[in-house]
Amino acid sequence: MARLVESSYGKCDVRLTKVVRAGERHTLIELTVQVMLGGAFDRVYTDGDNSSCIPTDTMKNTVYALARTHQFDSPEVFAAILADHFLRFAQVVWAEVDVEEVPWVRIQAGGQPHPHAFTRGGQGIRACRVRAARGAPARTWAGVRGLEVIKTTRSGFAGFHKDRYTTLGETTDRIFATSVDAVWEYSPSPASFTPAFDAARLCLMETFARHDSASVQQTIFAIGGALLERLAEISWVRISMPNQHRLPVNLQPFDMDNPNEIFVATSEPYGLITGTLARD
Amino acid sequence: MARLVESSYGKCDVRLTKVVRAGERHTLIELTVQVMLGGAFDRVYTDGDNSSCIPTDTMKNTVYALARTHQFDSPEVFAAILADHFLRFAQVVWAEVDVEEVPWVRIQAGGQPHPHAFTRGGQGIRACRVRAARGAPARTWAGVRGLEVIKTTRSGFAGFHKDRYTTLGETTDRIFATSVDAVWEYSPSPASFTPAFDAARLCLMETFARHDSASVQQTIFAIGGALLERLAEISWVRISMPNQHRLPVNLQPFDMDNPNEIFVATSEPYGLITGTLARD
Amino acid sequence: MARLVESSYGKCDVRLTKVVRAGERHTLIELTVQVMLGGAFDRVYTDGDNSSCIPTDTMKNTVYALARTHQFDSPEVFAAILADHFLRFAQVVWAEVDVEEVPWVRIQAGGQPHPHAFTRGGQGIRACRVRAARGAPARTWAGVRGLEVIKTTRSGFAGFHKDRYTTLGETTDRIFATSVDAVWEYSPSPASFTPAFDAARLCLMETFARHDSASVQQTIFAIGGALLERLAEISWVRISMPNQHRLPVNLQPFDMDNPNEIFVATSEPYGLITGTLARD
Amino acid sequence: MARLVESSYGKCDVRLTKVVRAGERHTLIELTVQVMLGGAFDRVYTDGDNSSCIPTDTMKNTVYALARTHQFDSPEVFAAILADHFLRFAQVVWAEVDVEEVPWVRIQAGGQPHPHAFTRGGQGIRACRVRAARGAPARTWAGVRGLEVIKTTRSGFAGFHKDRYTTLGETTDRIFATSVDAVWEYSPSPASFTPAFDAARLCLMETFARHDSASVQQTIFAIGGALLERLAEISWVRISMPNQHRLPVNLQPFDMDNPNEIFVATSEPYGLITGTLARD
Repeated sequence: MARLVESSYGKCDVRLTKVVRAGERHTLIELTVQVMLGGAFDRVYTDGDNSSCIPTDTMKNTVYALARTHQFDSPEVFAAILADHFLRFAQVVWAEVDVEEVPWVRIQAGGQPHPHAFTRGGQGIRACRVRAARGAPARTWAGVRGLEVIKTTRSGFAGFHKDRYTTLGETTDRIFATSVDAVWEYSPSPASFTPAFDAARLCLMETFARHDSASVQQTIFAIGGALLERLAEISWVRISMPNQHRLPVNLQPFDMDNPNEIFVATSEPYGLITGTLARD
Repeated sequence: MARLVESSYGKCDVRLTKVVRAGERHTLIELTVQVMLGGAFDRVYTDGDNSSCIPTDTMKNTVYALARTHQFDSPEVFAAILADHFLRFAQVVWAEVDVEEVPWVRIQAGGQPHPHAFTRGGQGIRACRVRAARGAPARTWAGVRGLEVIKTTRSGFAGFHKDRYTTLGETTDRIFATSVDAVWEYSPSPASFTPAFDAARLCLMETFARHDSASVQQTIFAIGGALLERLAEISWVRISMPNQHRLPVNLQPFDMDNPNEIFVATSEPYGLITGTLARD
Repeated sequence: MARLVESSYGKCDVRLTKVVRAGERHTLIELTVQVMLGGAFDRVYTDGDNSSCIPTDTMKNTVYALARTHQFDSPEVFAAILADHFLRFAQVVWAEVDVEEVPWVRIQAGGQPHPHAFTRGGQGIRACRVRAARGAPARTWAGVRGLEVIKTTRSGFAGFHKDRYTTLGETTDRIFATSVDAVWEYSPSPASFTPAFDAARLCLMETFARHDSASVQQTIFAIGGALLERLAEISWVRISMPNQHRLPVNLQPFDMDNPNEIFVATSEPYGLITGTLARD
Repeated sequence: MARLVESSYGKCDVRLTKVVRAGERHTLIELTVQVMLGGAFDRVYTDGDNSSCIPTDTMKNTVYALARTHQFDSPEVFAAILADHFLRFAQVVWAEVDVEEVPWVRIQAGGQPHPHAFTRGGQGIRACRVRAARGAPARTWAGVRGLEVIKTTRSGFAGFHKDRYTTLGETTDRIFATSVDAVWEYSPSPASFTPAFDAARLCLMETFARHDSASVQQTIFAIGGALLERLAEISWVRISMPNQHRLPVNLQPFDMDNPNEIFVATSEPYGLITGTLARD
């Protein structure tokens, strides 16, 4: 006989647009929301008894309704509003709300930020998760996904382990390109989430730029350390970096040298390096 | 001060093609391999000391070299060969190898399976993972990803919880479309992995087709139970199903009825239902 | 001063699901429809005068309404129904309707095709376009997209042009992998579109399998010629084939030979070869 | 008998990275290049005679070699270098080179643009095409792809054509979100391509922001007109805009109003509007 040992369900890719008007100046908030619930739902699975089941369609409606009734100035606050809401259902033991923000920035028109027109900015996707569970304080994670960065020097990889299958040459000057995923936990929460996020992302990019990297691993440690030092509210941070290789092209067949100038970018295979840092 | 509390690294998207020839008849194996390692790599992160670091480039080379020196008739066997190999390094504490197989099937030419020409089949992607860790037996997971299935009746959703944000109507006859992700652990391993996988995937699809579904949750439980009953080697299974909604179109504005005939398929938002079943 | 020299507009990605019931046996039709119109719409652009503008939302509604009121057994027939409809508007000079079909096949349950459960098959996406224009007969194109095929021998590439930048070696035995896009025009239309499409796709795959290929180009010519020979209704065919390279891995650094057995699949860069054939 | 009536072939997704060093300050150029050729290649298709066939692998090598031997400060210049090169082959009748640029911008570190670290910016992908054909002057197209913009007011859609399938309501205040693709031809070429591109993109965004839009069509006309006015070197421009709908959410079931504040973003179906403008 089979036994249900774990379950969860929810609604994904709920795309919310909210426009807040202050006279001529509009604030545009675009979020993609995911709600996942765990709790006393076993009979839905085992007996087709849906009486405890909150439809995912209701979750979607709730996202739009609570966006109307609540003010919020950050994804983290809205995620907490939603997580708190769903935890009020008796059958819910935990509610996990993920929110990603579309990175709109104001169009510069005539050198001025436009009051109601926006374009998509870079620097990755801001994301957060709030988990509310019965009998425990809510937890808040924040982070950035797909923050693409590249540096053209001050990166090397040498002195590594060699075996019979090693062909990689050592280098003290290579290109380092990656798309950073980082997630950290706030404990306690910062006074305001958006300045904290902005400071974290800036710290991450500055450390990437300035670090003399002996390996992707070492850069992860440098960035993680800088984040923990910069923001007292971060209790730990997990960083994941693909190594998006730029390989020097061999131009010798064409009687040319290649003074670290011409590279081929490859998307596969790629290295993947992860590390989690906490306060000592 | 920051402390490294977890780390891992490896190579992803290593795309291997192997052709095995038996006279005119060729067997084509196309795999995408990922190798991740954990172990005594802290000084790589903290001190830029790469002496323990096995380059991910070496991992890639190793995939190709071991594909040449070893015979294997399933992704699981090749994953185990690789995991065993990497666990032999003193600094490696665990090695996790993920393999996905490209689903080539022989082209039917003149009504006969062709000896060396193939086309891509459906029914999802076969995937597996082998994790070898020091001082413990290796573990083997198998599964299928993106197995797209749909049924046009024998599915309903009624009797669910209602609250002030519920607008969903009850239905006893809806379309049920999903893309199944399932992963299970073999313990012990089957005599042969490919027949076990084929039996599991067939069981999954047959159960989906035949089950009278009161909810996605109930179908997950039915499929998981069938898998555990059908294959004694499966100790547990985790199933994840997005609810790829097909919504009846309101044709009343055009003075038409819609006798459960015309639907719009939507990709967002979508429900997501997961469940893990084990033997009782 | 600026002048509008060309314009068109329409609705894309209209996802239609239609279920046709014959007792217990259901037929499932899933189509993605695109409608594009050209005509007397200049004042919409130049003067903000929308009086001639058929909203794209109306196009969407029309797809669902006409799917309800019409029977059709092929994407081509439905595309023609829609194109004819839109051409009846006085301001429309041409209407182009593209339809792609989701390749559902019946689940085999207990060795029998199931009456109402389906899984996604392979062999590419069936697509068609009907263009209706005032004062001219409608034209019908059909084709297949993303038909992935691979052969492990009977393919070579030798005797090619060399210059100072050529490093590619000649080969008489390589892997040939591609994802075929083919489109052809019917003139006149076949008695029934689905058997014609099935015959064309089978002919395409059989010719790919059997042809001794001196180049991707030559295979395109062989397939195109076979299609024109096999189906009298096809007046011309355009074939596009990326060369999805499989490169032999150099195993010499590991003291291994590679008897055409181990390859790396690369996704970039890739060759792209196109050719259009017509009757002589 | 079949006849080859059109053909072309080439190499796609050639990813080039070039680093130009001026002391500590590095310039990073990342381009994705596509080369397509037409010419006297019929016997490659019809007879398997490859003697005229320039391998696509050679094209790839040529991209890297010419990147080494030539200086260029814009994608357009590099595309012209490549197109000219390939047109020198006797069998080539035309060469078309497409180049897309990865939009790296310098990381701001300590408030200063960093000399060798970059992050990916927004504002779409800069693209160009140069077509060199025997006996005719080369042509140069430039443009931007995927430039995502949104405005929260000053957009409406009213007074449109109604028929029995129209349900869309009129509105004078809606959200207008799109991802602009624009391509224009330079004739003659500007003195410098990069300032021309930057001015065109800025003009496009400013016009989008400032225009009071009665329809996507009218905005296209406004933008196209502004581009032709702003840049004398542009002879025509083609603009394509998906209408990425933001639909007001009906909150009445929850006893709430929705004062144009809460919207759902949908990705399918979507309107698509195109227009080409030339000088009068």
